[in-house]
Amino acid sequence: MAADLSRLSLNQATTKHWSLREAVDGCARMGIPAIGIWRDRLAEVGVSAATRLLRDAGLHCSSLCRGGWFPAATRAERMARIDDNRRAIEEAAALHADVLVLVCGPAPDRHLRAARQMVEEGIAAILPDAIAHGVTLGIEPLHPMFAADRSVITSLGEALALAERFDSPHVGVVIDAYHVWWDVEVYHLIRRCGKRIAAYHVSDWITPLPDVLNGRGMMGDGVIELRSLREAVDAAGYTGFIEVEIFNETIWNMPGEVVLALMCERYLQYVAPA
Amino acid sequence: MAADLSRLSLNQATTKHWSLREAVDGCARMGIPAIGIWRDRLAEVGVSAATRLLRDAGLHCSSLCRGGWFPAATRAERMARIDDNRRAIEEAAALHADVLVLVCGPAPDRHLRAARQMVEEGIAAILPDAIAHGVTLGIEPLHPMFAADRSVITSLGEALALAERFDSPHVGVVIDAYHVWWDVEVYHLIRRCGKRIAAYHVSDWITPLPDVLNGRGMMGDGVIELRSLREAVDAAGYTGFIEVEIFNETIWNMPGEVVLALMCERYLQYVAPA
Repeated sequence: MAADLSRLSLNQATTKHWSLREAVDGCARMGIPAIGIWRDRLAEVGVSAATRLLRDAGLHCSSLCRGGWFPAATRAERMARIDDNRRAIEEAAALHADVLVLVCGPAPDRHLRAARQMVEEGIAAILPDAIAHGVTLGIEPLHPMFAADRSVITSLGEALALAERFDSPHVGVVIDAYHVWWDVEVYHLIRRCGKRIAAYHVSDWITPLPDVLNGRGMMGDGVIELRSLREAVDAAGYTGFIEVEIFNETIWNMPGEVVLALMCERYLQYVAPA
Repeated sequence: MAADLSRLSLNQATTKHWSLREAVDGCARMGIPAIGIWRDRLAEVGVSAATRLLRDAGLHCSSLCRGGWFPAATRAERMARIDDNRRAIEEAAALHADVLVLVCGPAPDRHLRAARQMVEEGIAAILPDAIAHGVTLGIEPLHPMFAADRSVITSLGEALALAERFDSPHVGVVIDAYHVWWDVEVYHLIRRCGKRIAAYHVSDWITPLPDVLNGRGMMGDGVIELRSLREAVDAAGYTGFIEVEIFNETIWNMPGEVVLALMCERYLQYVAPA
């Protein structure tokens, strides 16, 4: 088991300065079997070419990032965002992605409750499309420090309650250790998520936080109980990929090859079964 | 009611470059009836002199900041911190402070559960002293972005559950809007807190966040539903002071008089009963 990378996935945000082709090649060389893809990088090559790239490299798509961003001030803008989510679902289907990650979006004003309602309505609107395309929507709770500018869904309990209201195998939750590790209820909630866990992401929380948005650390450099959390996610019944998603200028400025080697080493040391 | 400042309190962290005497004088001139005091600034003048300053100005002490910081790697260090909390209790008693604010402290390692246990043991150790001195201990949940370096108590639900385990009128919770506004359960939790609300603090969440530690905004400059939250706190039965605590370099660099005038204006506009 010492070098078992069979569940490891590279979220391409971790190697920001690599194109999708470079990231796919990097994974293939390192024996990393899966990749999480961002839509802006997908658009650079196009869905068909990306699908061929993955197939030729024998690489699985563990997630497409991101759909969501539902709340908006006007109905017209909310409809436009729902349309964009429908395009994201089509892309996720073409890539055979395990999940379309939903970063649900901030409130357009001070009214969190209204924004949360818009999130629920948005997911309801796109769920038939997800079902038709065989795509799983993954509601990702973001760390509460992103409540004002990225997502009104700020805890795993909230994301799970939202997913439960749809009660569909096509609506799950995305658990990113960075976003939820602080929660006194996190182990209890992971257990409750059970089969609704659609994806699991890791990085680390370094102190002092170098940057709110781009301050994530490499596994092992911070304080998150990464092995315990992975064990809890597994015990809940999750058997999917473990995706490494790190937004960090220092890591971005390292050669991609070095980042991948370090990521594999740290994954084995701090996350994978000992 | 238009200029009713009767529940307003200045937390002296808001006017960082003022000494305690300057802050007391400023409050007296503006008709602000109460002040929240920090122990390091108290130490500069001494407890006796500070008590006289407040009495001469007719100013009430709405809080003493801070006790807590219980978790530590060794038993000796934990005992030293408990001793320090006992001194804080004596200071709070001398000042007739409404509450001693407990910022509970981070984990000395990766083990959040163990650190949370140390917090509970620490409060249990000092509670007899609080009772003997007639001091209320206020458990303040901090925003989850401080989980790694300031407090393992990261949500109002967690703070309330901890307070409830002591079931004493001398253990309550400190609600700071900045720390809890993002929580989908916040209104429900405030209601559940009821008489356990020992203090209420306000500031605002500005976007993008200028700094993790010192990025708080003046009320009205951000997204927090400050009036709704104050109404909820009042409806729960809280009748105490509403303390303005802002850590922000830009505000610190403004003349104290200007900060106080702005704070009064914004308090009336965004927080106080309309």
